[in-house]
Amino acid sequence: MAFRFEVMKADPSGARLGRLTTPHGTIETPAFMPVGTAGTVKAMTQEALEELHVGLLLANTYHLYLRPGHELIRRVGGLHRFMSWPGGILTDSGGYQVFSLADLRKTTDEGVRFRSHLDGTEHLLTPENAIEIQRALGSDIGMVLDECIEYPATRAHAASAAWRTAEWAKRSKSAIEAGPPSEATSEQVFFAIVQGGTFKDLRRQNAADLRALDFPGYAIGGLAVGEPHELSCEIAGETAACLPPERPRYVMGVGKPEQLLDYVRCGVDMMDCVLPTRNARNGYLYTSEGPLHIKNAEFAAEMRPIDERCRCMVCRRYSRAYLCHLFRANEILGAILNTHHNLYFFLDIMRAIREAIAFGNLSRFSSELQARLEAGHR
Amino acid sequence: MAFRFEVMKADPSGARLGRLTTPHGTIETPAFMPVGTAGTVKAMTQEALEELHVGLLLANTYHLYLRPGHELIRRVGGLHRFMSWPGGILTDSGGYQVFSLADLRKTTDEGVRFRSHLDGTEHLLTPENAIEIQRALGSDIGMVLDECIEYPATRAHAASAAWRTAEWAKRSKSAIEAGPPSEATSEQVFFAIVQGGTFKDLRRQNAADLRALDFPGYAIGGLAVGEPHELSCEIAGETAACLPPERPRYVMGVGKPEQLLDYVRCGVDMMDCVLPTRNARNGYLYTSEGPLHIKNAEFAAEMRPIDERCRCMVCRRYSRAYLCHLFRANEILGAILNTHHNLYFFLDIMRAIREAIAFGNLSRFSSELQARLEAGHR
Repeated sequence: MAFRFEVMKADPSGARLGRLTTPHGTIETPAFMPVGTAGTVKAMTQEALEELHVGLLLANTYHLYLRPGHELIRRVGGLHRFMSWPGGILTDSGGYQVFSLADLRKTTDEGVRFRSHLDGTEHLLTPENAIEIQRALGSDIGMVLDECIEYPATRAHAASAAWRTAEWAKRSKSAIEAGPPSEATSEQVFFAIVQGGTFKDLRRQNAADLRALDFPGYAIGGLAVGEPHELSCEIAGETAACLPPERPRYVMGVGKPEQLLDYVRCGVDMMDCVLPTRNARNGYLYTSEGPLHIKNAEFAAEMRPIDERCRCMVCRRYSRAYLCHLFRANEILGAILNTHHNLYFFLDIMRAIREAIAFGNLSRFSSELQARLEAGHR
Repeated sequence: MAFRFEVMKADPSGARLGRLTTPHGTIETPAFMPVGTAGTVKAMTQEALEELHVGLLLANTYHLYLRPGHELIRRVGGLHRFMSWPGGILTDSGGYQVFSLADLRKTTDEGVRFRSHLDGTEHLLTPENAIEIQRALGSDIGMVLDECIEYPATRAHAASAAWRTAEWAKRSKSAIEAGPPSEATSEQVFFAIVQGGTFKDLRRQNAADLRALDFPGYAIGGLAVGEPHELSCEIAGETAACLPPERPRYVMGVGKPEQLLDYVRCGVDMMDCVLPTRNARNGYLYTSEGPLHIKNAEFAAEMRPIDERCRCMVCRRYSRAYLCHLFRANEILGAILNTHHNLYFFLDIMRAIREAIAFGNLSRFSSELQARLEAGHR
């Protein structure tokens, strides 16, 4: 199987139903990708990810580069083989993680110099070695190095980061074309990332610059870094409109359950977020009636499942009382079950969204979903 | 189903093949019980325990009494319901955990006064409330309160602890008969525990005293507290010989893989131990060629499974390299997979032992197993 993306149906709202094929299978879009930072979706077995029909997951280049090291992963035949994962893998470029290091990094035209959060050693991430590292990992989809900025940012800073992101995308393109390709997978593609902060004209310009480089897919980066959700959607929508309609669009690092649909309506095909997994480990669980903190006393003797409407393996078997106990006792099983439920919840929303697009009733579905999720917040 | 134990076959070695029935199913003995301290076998889902055909697990009264509290568990319908576990549960009396607290406890004829390791609050455990707490938990098999001693101990100390253990067993028997029985299960039985340190005559006397009280099963306590393995087996064998042959015998807190068979040959039907689960979380993995420390550099790029001969889900899918990485990165999945493998390893030895007894070739099996496990230690 070679990389392919098809839009099966376009909804008047802007939402698209699509199909994304990589050497490791076909997934339906819009899709939510669980985050498997260090080559594992925390607290999930690969078997459990398969049961949840996860077709594509995200792994973090920064973490894998530092530990166990991309050369080790190359040596054992790539990340799929290393983690025994038959489905698709998307790797980020490491840029966002390095951006998050703040004091430990310095960005120049050459690349980003940073200190490892593990041992303080100094490293240089460039557009070229970001490609090289991801080739060693052998992901199905890699990302080019971009410069991510904080929110709020000045126009001048946003412009210079967008300009640098485009320059780096050019160098990435050259590095991709220069080869040699990844030995770990039959085909690896790289997506470019649009930056430009919250300035629409910068986003449009950056999208045009990257579009001219003809990447097989495009990400919208630099969102969900603190800006209001409405602004985030405005920028995502404006940017998506400037991207080639036949290519997949990926908004990085979003979102909350009640936000997923908003991005889908911006014409977004792919999303990833640590919220379901990280919140699960903190005992913050999503339900169709709004989120809950499982450690709270009100749940200590409550034999209902997390969510009566949920059909996940956790809600079919375990009670809030048990999960409350596991969380308070800091038991690993708490992290396992909470993560399973939260991931199911996110994936199930995406499944329902795809179904609504397919049946042409997205707008009704949308009102119902928002009403339900917002009711829970009251 | 009511409580029942049948010896199906007695081996000339002393080993017995049996069948133990509780209201929550029938298990074959000799059996190894995984330890589910706080109402969870650490890092295992109940689904995974079922896949491993775990029919009986141990839960710790001490831990559950302190958190979430036995009254809460009573209120929600007992421990089976609380943890959604359809199989059998054996609870200890809390005596051993309290014994382990050392500085925080004081034993008198009345019972054991101790301070919680969680919050320092003072509690009193008596023969009577140990029964009461376990009734609230609704385990299938409970244990009476005993006085466990350290090794080495003086004869005087061992004698007084054995005497007190017998006195407490009498009071326990009265409390059991006084009722009311557990509301959480259709039938709950209690086993007595033989003490007496490493003094054979004290063990014999204590066994006789407890036997006179006619308990449905007997445990041999106070072993695996530091004494040499040979001595442990001698005491276990001597004690087992003094117990009624038609009742199940349970040696508490043992053992290493290469020791399990020794206890079986003493005529022991049940064992429990934290070794497979605790060691798993420390990256210490059992294999048919001896144990290994998965964090070691030699495994960092080794794509073989933990144990080529093992047919567990972990060895069928994951490599030493991946497990080494997960351990080093302190990933929850490391604990999950390591625990699954180690438990499978222990349970598989017990399965093989039962098979060998059934086919009458225990002595050949024994030489082979010892040779293999010992070879790995060289």
